[in-house]
Amino acid sequence: MEKSGFSLLLFSGDYDKCLAAMILANGARDLEMEVDVFCAFWGLLLLRDPEKLSMEDKDVYEKMFTLATPAGAEALPLSKMNMAGMGKQMLLNMMASQESPDLVSFLHGAFKKGVRFHACELSMKIMGFESEELLPEVTVKTVHDYLQQARKAEIQLFI
Amino acid sequence: MEKSGFSLLLFSGDYDKCLAAMILANGARDLEMEVDVFCAFWGLLLLRDPEKLSMEDKDVYEKMFTLATPAGAEALPLSKMNMAGMGKQMLLNMMASQESPDLVSFLHGAFKKGVRFHACELSMKIMGFESEELLPEVTVKTVHDYLQQARKAEIQLFI
Amino acid sequence: MEKSGFSLLLFSGDYDKCLAAMILANGARDLEMEVDVFCAFWGLLLLRDPEKLSMEDKDVYEKMFTLATPAGAEALPLSKMNMAGMGKQMLLNMMASQESPDLVSFLHGAFKKGVRFHACELSMKIMGFESEELLPEVTVKTVHDYLQQARKAEIQLFI
Repeated sequence: MEKSGFSLLLFSGDYDKCLAAMILANGARDLEMEVDVFCAFWGLLLLRDPEKLSMEDKDVYEKMFTLATPAGAEALPLSKMNMAGMGKQMLLNMMASQESPDLVSFLHGAFKKGVRFHACELSMKIMGFESEELLPEVTVKTVHDYLQQARKAEIQLFI
Repeated sequence: MEKSGFSLLLFSGDYDKCLAAMILANGARDLEMEVDVFCAFWGLLLLRDPEKLSMEDKDVYEKMFTLATPAGAEALPLSKMNMAGMGKQMLLNMMASQESPDLVSFLHGAFKKGVRFHACELSMKIMGFESEELLPEVTVKTVHDYLQQARKAEIQLFI
Repeated sequence: MEKSGFSLLLFSGDYDKCLAAMILANGARDLEMEVDVFCAFWGLLLLRDPEKLSMEDKDVYEKMFTLATPAGAEALPLSKMNMAGMGKQMLLNMMASQESPDLVSFLHGAFKKGVRFHACELSMKIMGFESEELLPEVTVKTVHDYLQQARKAEIQLFI
């Protein structure tokens, strides 16, 4: 069977890794590849709707976790050289001076171009995310769904 | 030639990344895929038998390294928000409240389901691990063995 | 179409992850696989020529970035246990006592064996790298170039 499509398992919640993921996803759509981004663990933070943080139906650990983690794509830290946010500001300034779009712009570009976003059901359960807290473009999927889709893809990456 | 199987190169020794790796490995076995997990560098820490730390035949650096690194799967740190162990305890509590198994349970589940575990020979040499220090289910393999196996797999990930 | 070759997207600038990447790249050449290493973001630091740091035509952020980042392969930090360089020295000592080559030796081995190295154009733009600052063996490529090549490869990894 001929393989096709680009499958990305986004585990990381670092600004720079999410940026790399979105650049790849957008680029693959430009080449008319089908693109599926499956967000698990910290990668779920990319899909969080900053307007919809919820404390309802959460136990104390889930509430602490909700408060302790970044409230949306632009709040994510760098994987390296974060230096209390200074390194990230530097990167943002360098991107702005090159007129490069920021992470949220790449994310919304990906939505428009038809990149499919999936949230890992098990990660949501462990981390206490409700689907109402995620951006509306996201569908919830299982690990089995991910694997079934990834095995048909031409390119699979874990970021 | 038709490709088959799931090949995972586990480089990371972070609790959360190892957990993701074990969830994927168990999930792929549920789908009756052959699964090979090749552990290199910090990934070897997952395979360490906490009962069998050894100081024999080790030089001073290898001894320091043996003492400075986590002594088994449950001792591994988080990749993010570890905060001197506080974040990890939070994650463990969240997992427990969802009745999600811990890392050691996923690891033993993987052994039972027939996931094959390999330890990278070169990494063992560099880090001073003896094969007696690893769990008995593990076989030692070379980088060439890894590559030969990975090129036949349907899915290859580096975690 | 039969797939062939090994495609590696090197995002990380950590000493240990770059070492793993170079060991895999060299190993794949031993097996006569075609190998392409596409360096993006921090991975560009591996390809920096320590003799050729430049401040010309850089804005203030790019200059700060040039100074704040490691000046070549051997200056890269560890991803774990770096402990202000102590952990890295420990690893280097362990490697030396096993007569294992260091990162620069693996990199030059890869050049000699015909591993192809590419620098991500967009990352260079964002981070303010000039192509004159990179080692002469490197060619500049776009994200589309990466994707077109990766989809034809037998193994694709993101490190």
